[in-house]
Amino acid sequence: MLHSGASRGLGLEFCKQILKKKSSAAVLATCRNPDAAAELRVLAGQHPGRLTVLKLDVNLEEDIRAAAALVMGGFGRLDLLVNSSAMLHPSGRGETSLRDVSAQDVISTFTTNAVGPLVMTRYFAPLLQKGSGGFGQQPAEKSQQHSGIIVNITAKVGSIGDNGLGGWYSYRMSKAALNMATRNISIELGRGRPKVVCVSLHPGTVDTDLSRPYHKNVPKDKLFSAEHSVSCLMNIINTLSFEKTGRAYSWDGTELPW
Amino acid sequence: MLHSGASRGLGLEFCKQILKKKSSAAVLATCRNPDAAAELRVLAGQHPGRLTVLKLDVNLEEDIRAAAALVMGGFGRLDLLVNSSAMLHPSGRGETSLRDVSAQDVISTFTTNAVGPLVMTRYFAPLLQKGSGGFGQQPAEKSQQHSGIIVNITAKVGSIGDNGLGGWYSYRMSKAALNMATRNISIELGRGRPKVVCVSLHPGTVDTDLSRPYHKNVPKDKLFSAEHSVSCLMNIINTLSFEKTGRAYSWDGTELPW
Repeated sequence: MLHSGASRGLGLEFCKQILKKKSSAAVLATCRNPDAAAELRVLAGQHPGRLTVLKLDVNLEEDIRAAAALVMGGFGRLDLLVNSSAMLHPSGRGETSLRDVSAQDVISTFTTNAVGPLVMTRYFAPLLQKGSGGFGQQPAEKSQQHSGIIVNITAKVGSIGDNGLGGWYSYRMSKAALNMATRNISIELGRGRPKVVCVSLHPGTVDTDLSRPYHKNVPKDKLFSAEHSVSCLMNIINTLSFEKTGRAYSWDGTELPW
Repeated sequence: MLHSGASRGLGLEFCKQILKKKSSAAVLATCRNPDAAAELRVLAGQHPGRLTVLKLDVNLEEDIRAAAALVMGGFGRLDLLVNSSAMLHPSGRGETSLRDVSAQDVISTFTTNAVGPLVMTRYFAPLLQKGSGGFGQQPAEKSQQHSGIIVNITAKVGSIGDNGLGGWYSYRMSKAALNMATRNISIELGRGRPKVVCVSLHPGTVDTDLSRPYHKNVPKDKLFSAEHSVSCLMNIINTLSFEKTGRAYSWDGTELPW
């Protein structure tokens, strides 16, 4: 499995849990600056030969193309892609009103949160189509089985229908666009055989750098550790099948409206 | 009323119909290159003193800020803002598969289709809050009345829930993000008094430069003239009220899923 934004937060936790629970899986972790990713290095030391760290900025198509070529050469296939790199806003605070909106900030957030996962998918889809279907549940019917899974980490605030509060223009718009990408990818990669499943998953409100400025507004039992959140998301991933492709799910398995 | 992308297609037709049917309305038409907008000049000649053409590129925040200052100085208020500038894809053809996806094209399309209308709204919202409520229907209850209306021209293919075909990544993602902007704007501008209504409207498949490469796939009775489409959209606009804010409607008045 491979994912982006792996040096911290949810991405790092995905690495930990898959290395621990899937003893046969090779894990590829991508991040912008591997030299500064101390926790990833510790993890690599604890699991000799199983964790590969790749330098990759999801905003640089050339990085992604090169990483995909490298994975193709070294492994030839991929079973799970988790797109977990994301930003709330270049300033670290979401817009509270239209007055805070700047074109460049909206574009930067969209580029990282929506374009990044899409371009990752463009280059890794051929590897996922060669996957062994090692994640999720395979139905008996062969034509409905999948070779790989793509998980786009979305957010409940990216649901247009669920939006009752407003604000956070950049983040909300980027996640709505990401959800459209999920839907589109699920259709394109669901046509052929073997199929690749693609879903958006909402991790809950997790104690990460992205959400930290807002913790005072979150009830204690709703603020998850990365460990708890990823454990919930892995439960969902473990039961994914082609029947569930192209939708958005919350950490507890309930479906989110678009 | 004011709108962007007014030199051709739907934008031009909005000018024509409002000049004709709303005899008291002053119309402001914005486009990137007024010198090349021959039809707008003819229209201005036919309606002396009623049509002002402003040079504005929705990708340039400085243009938008300057136009808003100009309208504030000259008119002091605005009743209707129609965001109709849009592109299908920089190449003129939507992506048919992931292989066609390029980061820069996705970003360019998003910038014009979603960021443009959002930044227009940011700068023109104060003018709409000073509007006279000349468009739409006003309920008897004063606290529910609106001073202005924002129309974001969306597209049915921007509906995530309705997406059964896939493809057109750039366009679909930009319109899903625009729909999120509509929702967010409707919440923010629906809080205060006077209220500003904001909706997304789907014009149908219209015979414009944007859609022309695809006409062979459209049944004749589903391919609208800009005149017919805008006439349908004006019928919707004329019945808008705060009750209907924050949603997406098709040309026939039916609500679109997100």
